[in-house]
Amino acid sequence: MTKTIVSDGSLPNIPWEPRPAGSSDIVWRFSKNPVIPRHASPTADSIYNSAVVPFKGGFAGVFRCDDRARNMTLRVGKSRDGVNFEISDNRLEFHSEEPEIGKFLEGYDPRVVPLDGRYYVIWCNNYHGYTIGLGWTEDFEHFNQLENVFLPFNRNGVLFPRKIGGEYLMMSRPSYAGHTPFGDIFISHSKDLTYWGKHRHVMGPKKDGGLVNWQMTKIGAGPYPIETREGWLLFYHGVLTTCNGFTYSMGAALLDLEKPWQVRYRTRPYLLTPETLYENVGNTQNVLFPCAALTDSDSGRIALYYGAADTCTGMAFCQVDELLDYLKNNSDV
Amino acid sequence: MTKTIVSDGSLPNIPWEPRPAGSSDIVWRFSKNPVIPRHASPTADSIYNSAVVPFKGGFAGVFRCDDRARNMTLRVGKSRDGVNFEISDNRLEFHSEEPEIGKFLEGYDPRVVPLDGRYYVIWCNNYHGYTIGLGWTEDFEHFNQLENVFLPFNRNGVLFPRKIGGEYLMMSRPSYAGHTPFGDIFISHSKDLTYWGKHRHVMGPKKDGGLVNWQMTKIGAGPYPIETREGWLLFYHGVLTTCNGFTYSMGAALLDLEKPWQVRYRTRPYLLTPETLYENVGNTQNVLFPCAALTDSDSGRIALYYGAADTCTGMAFCQVDELLDYLKNNSDV
Amino acid sequence: MTKTIVSDGSLPNIPWEPRPAGSSDIVWRFSKNPVIPRHASPTADSIYNSAVVPFKGGFAGVFRCDDRARNMTLRVGKSRDGVNFEISDNRLEFHSEEPEIGKFLEGYDPRVVPLDGRYYVIWCNNYHGYTIGLGWTEDFEHFNQLENVFLPFNRNGVLFPRKIGGEYLMMSRPSYAGHTPFGDIFISHSKDLTYWGKHRHVMGPKKDGGLVNWQMTKIGAGPYPIETREGWLLFYHGVLTTCNGFTYSMGAALLDLEKPWQVRYRTRPYLLTPETLYENVGNTQNVLFPCAALTDSDSGRIALYYGAADTCTGMAFCQVDELLDYLKNNSDV
Amino acid sequence: MTKTIVSDGSLPNIPWEPRPAGSSDIVWRFSKNPVIPRHASPTADSIYNSAVVPFKGGFAGVFRCDDRARNMTLRVGKSRDGVNFEISDNRLEFHSEEPEIGKFLEGYDPRVVPLDGRYYVIWCNNYHGYTIGLGWTEDFEHFNQLENVFLPFNRNGVLFPRKIGGEYLMMSRPSYAGHTPFGDIFISHSKDLTYWGKHRHVMGPKKDGGLVNWQMTKIGAGPYPIETREGWLLFYHGVLTTCNGFTYSMGAALLDLEKPWQVRYRTRPYLLTPETLYENVGNTQNVLFPCAALTDSDSGRIALYYGAADTCTGMAFCQVDELLDYLKNNSDV
Amino acid sequence: MTKTIVSDGSLPNIPWEPRPAGSSDIVWRFSKNPVIPRHASPTADSIYNSAVVPFKGGFAGVFRCDDRARNMTLRVGKSRDGVNFEISDNRLEFHSEEPEIGKFLEGYDPRVVPLDGRYYVIWCNNYHGYTIGLGWTEDFEHFNQLENVFLPFNRNGVLFPRKIGGEYLMMSRPSYAGHTPFGDIFISHSKDLTYWGKHRHVMGPKKDGGLVNWQMTKIGAGPYPIETREGWLLFYHGVLTTCNGFTYSMGAALLDLEKPWQVRYRTRPYLLTPETLYENVGNTQNVLFPCAALTDSDSGRIALYYGAADTCTGMAFCQVDELLDYLKNNSDV
Amino acid sequence: MTKTIVSDGSLPNIPWEPRPAGSSDIVWRFSKNPVIPRHASPTADSIYNSAVVPFKGGFAGVFRCDDRARNMTLRVGKSRDGVNFEISDNRLEFHSEEPEIGKFLEGYDPRVVPLDGRYYVIWCNNYHGYTIGLGWTEDFEHFNQLENVFLPFNRNGVLFPRKIGGEYLMMSRPSYAGHTPFGDIFISHSKDLTYWGKHRHVMGPKKDGGLVNWQMTKIGAGPYPIETREGWLLFYHGVLTTCNGFTYSMGAALLDLEKPWQVRYRTRPYLLTPETLYENVGNTQNVLFPCAALTDSDSGRIALYYGAADTCTGMAFCQVDELLDYLKNNSDV
Repeated sequence: MTKTIVSDGSLPNIPWEPRPAGSSDIVWRFSKNPVIPRHASPTADSIYNSAVVPFKGGFAGVFRCDDRARNMTLRVGKSRDGVNFEISDNRLEFHSEEPEIGKFLEGYDPRVVPLDGRYYVIWCNNYHGYTIGLGWTEDFEHFNQLENVFLPFNRNGVLFPRKIGGEYLMMSRPSYAGHTPFGDIFISHSKDLTYWGKHRHVMGPKKDGGLVNWQMTKIGAGPYPIETREGWLLFYHGVLTTCNGFTYSMGAALLDLEKPWQVRYRTRPYLLTPETLYENVGNTQNVLFPCAALTDSDSGRIALYYGAADTCTGMAFCQVDELLDYLKNNSDV
Repeated sequence: MTKTIVSDGSLPNIPWEPRPAGSSDIVWRFSKNPVIPRHASPTADSIYNSAVVPFKGGFAGVFRCDDRARNMTLRVGKSRDGVNFEISDNRLEFHSEEPEIGKFLEGYDPRVVPLDGRYYVIWCNNYHGYTIGLGWTEDFEHFNQLENVFLPFNRNGVLFPRKIGGEYLMMSRPSYAGHTPFGDIFISHSKDLTYWGKHRHVMGPKKDGGLVNWQMTKIGAGPYPIETREGWLLFYHGVLTTCNGFTYSMGAALLDLEKPWQVRYRTRPYLLTPETLYENVGNTQNVLFPCAALTDSDSGRIALYYGAADTCTGMAFCQVDELLDYLKNNSDV
Repeated sequence: MTKTIVSDGSLPNIPWEPRPAGSSDIVWRFSKNPVIPRHASPTADSIYNSAVVPFKGGFAGVFRCDDRARNMTLRVGKSRDGVNFEISDNRLEFHSEEPEIGKFLEGYDPRVVPLDGRYYVIWCNNYHGYTIGLGWTEDFEHFNQLENVFLPFNRNGVLFPRKIGGEYLMMSRPSYAGHTPFGDIFISHSKDLTYWGKHRHVMGPKKDGGLVNWQMTKIGAGPYPIETREGWLLFYHGVLTTCNGFTYSMGAALLDLEKPWQVRYRTRPYLLTPETLYENVGNTQNVLFPCAALTDSDSGRIALYYGAADTCTGMAFCQVDELLDYLKNNSDV
Repeated sequence: MTKTIVSDGSLPNIPWEPRPAGSSDIVWRFSKNPVIPRHASPTADSIYNSAVVPFKGGFAGVFRCDDRARNMTLRVGKSRDGVNFEISDNRLEFHSEEPEIGKFLEGYDPRVVPLDGRYYVIWCNNYHGYTIGLGWTEDFEHFNQLENVFLPFNRNGVLFPRKIGGEYLMMSRPSYAGHTPFGDIFISHSKDLTYWGKHRHVMGPKKDGGLVNWQMTKIGAGPYPIETREGWLLFYHGVLTTCNGFTYSMGAALLDLEKPWQVRYRTRPYLLTPETLYENVGNTQNVLFPCAALTDSDSGRIALYYGAADTCTGMAFCQVDELLDYLKNNSDV
Repeated sequence: MTKTIVSDGSLPNIPWEPRPAGSSDIVWRFSKNPVIPRHASPTADSIYNSAVVPFKGGFAGVFRCDDRARNMTLRVGKSRDGVNFEISDNRLEFHSEEPEIGKFLEGYDPRVVPLDGRYYVIWCNNYHGYTIGLGWTEDFEHFNQLENVFLPFNRNGVLFPRKIGGEYLMMSRPSYAGHTPFGDIFISHSKDLTYWGKHRHVMGPKKDGGLVNWQMTKIGAGPYPIETREGWLLFYHGVLTTCNGFTYSMGAALLDLEKPWQVRYRTRPYLLTPETLYENVGNTQNVLFPCAALTDSDSGRIALYYGAADTCTGMAFCQVDELLDYLKNNSDV
Repeated sequence: MTKTIVSDGSLPNIPWEPRPAGSSDIVWRFSKNPVIPRHASPTADSIYNSAVVPFKGGFAGVFRCDDRARNMTLRVGKSRDGVNFEISDNRLEFHSEEPEIGKFLEGYDPRVVPLDGRYYVIWCNNYHGYTIGLGWTEDFEHFNQLENVFLPFNRNGVLFPRKIGGEYLMMSRPSYAGHTPFGDIFISHSKDLTYWGKHRHVMGPKKDGGLVNWQMTKIGAGPYPIETREGWLLFYHGVLTTCNGFTYSMGAALLDLEKPWQVRYRTRPYLLTPETLYENVGNTQNVLFPCAALTDSDSGRIALYYGAADTCTGMAFCQVDELLDYLKNNSDV
């Protein structure tokens, strides 16, 4: 039988837990959540919105660890099973020969994308305003910093895991200096990861004639897109503004394989919304923010990592075929 | 002995639980709260701010059910005992012959009022802005929509359960396009439920020379008013703005029987404020929002339904005579 | 030849000045502007946004006169020629037997509509918030106040000059407590001028996919609609928000004769925008706000009165057939 | 051996609990938290942000008790052990012969400072805006009110526990009418506690080139400063603004003994941040607000009282020498 | 006959121009306005909101001169006739031995008050926020700086021209970091001009049940109070907020001689409002801001200096007895 | 003698008027201002913020013409003398083969830069938010559109008139969706005008420890930089926020020739600020916005074009050597 997931191949040791009995949810939470508690490192205030990839038979990742000054830092974490992580007590440092961009001040909401034999790290960097930082590692020990991708203000940069039409593609969400009340996803192109252009609008918050919905304030790309036979499967977050603040939930979209700024399907309902104590209570209540997904093309399993309440890290699971069916049947582009 | 409650008569099967030992609270929570959890229907994100009435020996109601897109819908629910409800998995639809108003887009914060042999449904409707929708049913299966009561922007429409001076009376709270930072209660008159006029101001937030209090930002009518020998007993919500958002609590007022825009008493303290985990944590923290009250004139019992944290539904109880005594002794009009 | 203007008949003494040589403007300013300067009454700070009708062979009107405390009052003004006005030094008072609404606190932006042998006055009244006040006079000396038309918050109430389908029709613009950044025009119905219902949306600001235009923030009805053979001709104001405040310009629309909430044409360009010193400088810079129009069905002449810079009153002229042609050829509904 | 703490002397019955096994925290929470629950008095909505001092072999204090109208009142509390408190059911009243300042309307966030044989009470008072109220008691039964210290708007007034250079010193944080988004600490001088001058800036929020940190929005003094051999030890709160509101954490600074507006050290990391359910959930989520500290110069023990979530009162402990070491090694002035 | 003006005595060379023919205004503008144009000094962007006193047979003053960087500086100006001024091209510098307050960064809206043989200068100073600076000169060449009067944020400090009850009195208007939307006048006491206390509320903006008026947003003291037989005559500015910004007008109040925080009369109408081109157009449109008054007790003449449009300086005149009559007959405390 | 201006060579017919007698201003206004009035084209509401270059012995340009719907369009204008312009009555259209970017919706604040034999047009374009549009023409009749330079939100894109280090350089000012209250100038690099990277921060608003100054809110590049022997001479606008809105003035900076993100000098005072009636009054009061400069290397003359009050176009003149001297002597980087 043809496999649905094209990218990244077999991952027999993908973390996994079957859907709970009695549940009909398409995406379900891990019973051991939060898998990474806020003090997994004693120097950490919180560990969340983080990126995990398979690495040397186990797993490695770049984690957003706010330290006890609440400075936003990136740190390396490693795991044998993808569930129990050892998080470094020290912040990750990038090497760069360009002195101006080499001032690595803040890092948050990282993604890690394997491509061309490297692990590219994309994060929200501070260069006279928040913008998209870009670097790479081969060993999760030495990290090299490239030029910042865009001008400020920008967030949620996510690189596609392969070139399309001979060019690199980067999703991002143009933004504002503070807690931004708007946000659309765009795709930009590059031949060399330094110069970017041909910006294309992908999708924005769902306006729906003013009807309240979970993704009406802003949206942003989550894990790097998963290539399937039917298109790029993108998990993304959407934000609703209540009278007491923002609520971050997760949905999914299916993007055209060749022109991924063309959205084929997009979930009208959310897939997950904050409703456990560790998602509703913490540094920022009511935040569920996905940043990484592991896939096993053999079984069609997907394991998601998401930040909970800007405090800790949870996991959730789904089956790719079930998800694609649901997406097609509950879509509203 | 003369009964205090005039309206609605005997309801021997009113849901009830006595005051907990050791408590001196005038209104006390049900120990089984939340009686309706957020996923009582599998297609619901949350069920709250809802209206229940006695119906055919049991109970029926119209519920605010945000679905998993967080669209705000109304649904029918039924119950034998007033505590365990079966909530429809589908949204309630209204029938209307006027094409323009028949576009029923959103419904939230419903009230149900028995009057003239019908069950009138009043809700927050979206017609180029939020305003007061009006409809009716006789069987909780077929619902007819009438003309919208007011121009936008308005919320918390509550019909009186009988005509006064030959006219229908509707309470409402003129409002704003978004999360409104003000709100007074008015009463409007109608001879036919279509044309409304003679608008009278009832009461506003308590300014108190700028002193902080639980009802200083805005207020809104809750369940339809209970006719007592001493006046219309109105439960209402009041809102306080903290540095981290709105807090919704519940108080009560006694309105003049003939000119109900004249407030005779009004609780200076709240009767209930969010202090349980299901009221403090959820879709919107710190919300306790009453929408329905059952009464038994024989026993003087009152059973209240209220939305908790914009997520689930709780119940609370009180005795009408105790409440009226408290209201008179703790009033500050 | 058939006359275009249906309502109000002949007015041979309509104020008039032909289009200046070399101009191709559809609506042109009076060379004697501002016809009513700010201190036309020594007790006035400013006289603007005012309503004029033919009266006993001359002209009479209700004027917004802010006094030297900047309290917003209404005053009577009279004129032989429609250009030179004598403005009363004292505020107009309404008589009402209903004590609560009889507290006439503030009045601004009046319109005067002849109907059923009376002159109805509609203004922005303050009853626990700004709403639409309604009264009438037969002699411009005694004024009677009726019930307020709507709940707060509302502005720019304009009555149609005849019943349609046996009912009175009132335009209005639901609003906010302060300087409102939004505003759509609605029509409401009444059989008796006391009870109002059947609210219909007419039109809103022009969103145009976010493109900047002169009417993108809010709009509001100006003079009472002029009945023509092709529909109700409505002059209205539209507001643009610059980085330094609001700019009020004037456009026109043609509404269906029977269902006037259906807009047949609407000017994409403005007809007049503030560009003279008396429109650009004053109490509020960059305001041009029409409130009254005189028509002569014989000549097709229209004479407009408009407030300038919230300070004084100007006039402008047009020919109905030219205007309708322009409207049809420059429309964007 | 020389004792580090200079002020207040021995307090052998200081409340105390050793650091939990396995913890390396410099300041640790009491396992019996919250020691004062919100309903410790049946007339209280909440009890927090309060001041405790040793008194007659036990402990006494002035507590912020919001009543069930959410009015902000002060009340007296007493305790034998510093942990179990009896809170008065009635609000504390001040005596004053100056009629205008004698209108004691609101009281919140009190501090109590022993000085010259009296217990001075400093609180946030309402005199045409929030400012610093000042009074004193000798017996915690009769309270005398002095002149307000400053003009509005001001908060977090904290008196030094002895004169310096022959003058009283008062810290305060100039503020705004509402929920203020800024705030620096100043020191002012007085010879007589009535007239104040020679205002000196101490420190402000940490700007850090725009880097996010726990004290970036505003700061305010907590308990009255503890005199040590190395300087005045000041616990203070700092505020971070998230997309869902303010987060209040606690840090410490060491001020020069003679010129305490000169900051010698200041913790770059926080010492405590809200992370328990009673700190994260309540009337205002994510608030940890210290107002009092007991010290025992013999053992070097410090016991802190802090408000949690604007709802209840918790305690925490530390050792002065450990704290000073940490402060010096983790300082960023 | 008894003279009405008590303070400052004869000033036969007071600048003066009689009321224009046909005018009934109580305060009238000088026909030579603006007497000080914006470029009276070639290094000035603008000269306004300034203070003039009689000096050595002529006149001297401290002027707000924004330079061409728009930095707010103070400069000395001198005049023989009080109308034609020579403005220094350089900023005034204060001498102070206290190094911290000696950093004179910004100065605006100065007042000059003769008292005890000195000329005290009060201005809006910047010491970690805007507050009230205080200094003095005897010769308008050397200026000495005293301690700042209050903590930030404060503006419009005005010293009384003699001690009352043995104490100095200072008016001020507590304020905010930016363009403040509120403001009341207070009086504070001092024995030595260094330490200040006994703060008393004088008056605030006129709320008037929400009615629009010229002084509804904020108010602030203007020239130093003029002692008359009937009380302290205070000219002050009041601010109205339109949809396009603030409008500053001028009114007057009569304060009790012994307890000047008790307001005996206060003009309900304004006395002057911006209505000339030099008041309506400039750096900030619609600003008329009085800072100084000359008086001649023999003739009862008062000559006012006011800033116009934050750009230049105008003068206006009135007769004290006419003004007091008007004040009493048009008062609304 | 060596010429100071390197770029663009001789322009003997540069528009010119000598400095007025008695003036010492470095930059002076043209006595015929506004050279292009708002209705120079009968279909224009206003003509301002526009770009002029020498073309075929005369002058051509791209003008911001808001039409009478206040839509923001670009139009071509031509002139023999650089002073009297013929402005097209129709909007300029771009040709593009990429369908998505070819939707040319809005255009404002254009610059025109001669480079490589083409005239490049850079403007503020609307592609799901305002960003930098790029196109070119050779004949001012046919215009070709290239890819948008950056993601939204961005404004004030200005191309350097030659490559540096083999790369094109573009200045821009990252921005916000609305009237942005911040703004820094950056430089980005490109090898092909399609892909852009290596973003460098040039300079931001002048913070100056919070001192008020003319460029404290935001800044943006004006005409394309003029190459001089001492560096790139950049005219730019700076914005000050008053209580009644933004004020736009003009200053200048000298950038390093090889690394133009290094600022060598920057005027502390403004060079021009709005102070004529055509700059202070109009569509947006108090705006002076330079977009183009002509230079004659022989005479050192510079002629500037600037938008006035978002309404019309003015000119000003200076001598390059005088300006550079002034810049060096009045600089504050």
